[in-house]
Amino acid sequence: MTTAPLRKDAARNWHRIVEIGRRFADEGTPIQLNDVARAAEVGVATVYRHFPTPEALLETVATPGLEALVAHAERALAEDDPWVALRDFLLASVDAQATDPALPPVFAAPVNALPSTIGSKRQLIDMFGQLLDRAHDAGVADPEVTKADMLPLMCGVMFAAGVHQDADGPGRAATARRYLTVLLEGLRKASA
Amino acid sequence: MTTAPLRKDAARNWHRIVEIGRRFADEGTPIQLNDVARAAEVGVATVYRHFPTPEALLETVATPGLEALVAHAERALAEDDPWVALRDFLLASVDAQATDPALPPVFAAPVNALPSTIGSKRQLIDMFGQLLDRAHDAGVADPEVTKADMLPLMCGVMFAAGVHQDADGPGRAATARRYLTVLLEGLRKASA
Repeated sequence: MTTAPLRKDAARNWHRIVEIGRRFADEGTPIQLNDVARAAEVGVATVYRHFPTPEALLETVATPGLEALVAHAERALAEDDPWVALRDFLLASVDAQATDPALPPVFAAPVNALPSTIGSKRQLIDMFGQLLDRAHDAGVADPEVTKADMLPLMCGVMFAAGVHQDADGPGRAATARRYLTVLLEGLRKASA
Repeated sequence: MTTAPLRKDAARNWHRIVEIGRRFADEGTPIQLNDVARAAEVGVATVYRHFPTPEALLETVATPGLEALVAHAERALAEDDPWVALRDFLLASVDAQATDPALPPVFAAPVNALPSTIGSKRQLIDMFGQLLDRAHDAGVADPEVTKADMLPLMCGVMFAAGVHQDADGPGRAATARRYLTVLLEGLRKASA
């Protein structure tokens, strides 16, 4: 009858490690599992048992943000106006990435560590595709831009905002929104 | 009378090291000075004497590309049509970055190692500003986009093209051009 307390310990350690991962991501500290173990006051082996790679921990930290975006995309698909639906979802994606520093690297990574991350990203790309299809069908979005471009373009907006001289602090979110606005104007115009 | 041959040796080593740096950049191999020394068949101390950091070597490799862009900007400033001048220079910047893998990291770096790199980047940003000013004055470019946005936006286009699934090989340059075209549409529209 020792399994229950052991599981409770494991769950507590898991939460503690994820909390430290969250803090590292928010501070901009690179996630290295040795440093995480030290900060979480658990053994390195315990960290590795839960998270075999730094990417697995980072993606776990990013999971709530990813799931919130999937839920947001579902709501956007219920919006009547195809352009408003696409625009608002793109704005939400950029805001989410500007608010949660764990998201941009997870979006930009060509391969992901967790099946759940791969699933959420695939869902997002699919829903981006549906939103874009509706905008294409309504003749309000550049037909040259396809589903496969949406994630790269979002990543480009975030990267550009990070290169801007006011990249730190709240200026970054405002810059990202401004750059997305320019992109949206371009996405919209070519169909006019 | 031994200085002349020594200088000749030093110049030969410098060229050999820069050549290896060029090859590493083209192959996408991260520039580590130990690896460079091995590949160039010179001592590590020799590499460090010429290039105290990997960034110094990468920027030396990028120098001809940077200088070519400065020369291109000078020609663009002589173009009569403000929009054509701005557009063509942006296209040239993106093409140069897609062709020379040493350029994007040098452009995106918040600080640079060599005074000459800092000088060339400042010159480019200034000339971007002049091209943009002319387009603003002619009422053909979004007044919300300023000189400080041009380099970040270029870096964003390159980053987005790198995230796209066809990021490797010649597809990357075509994707970068396509993304720049969307951006140009956005930059142009808001003033219409």
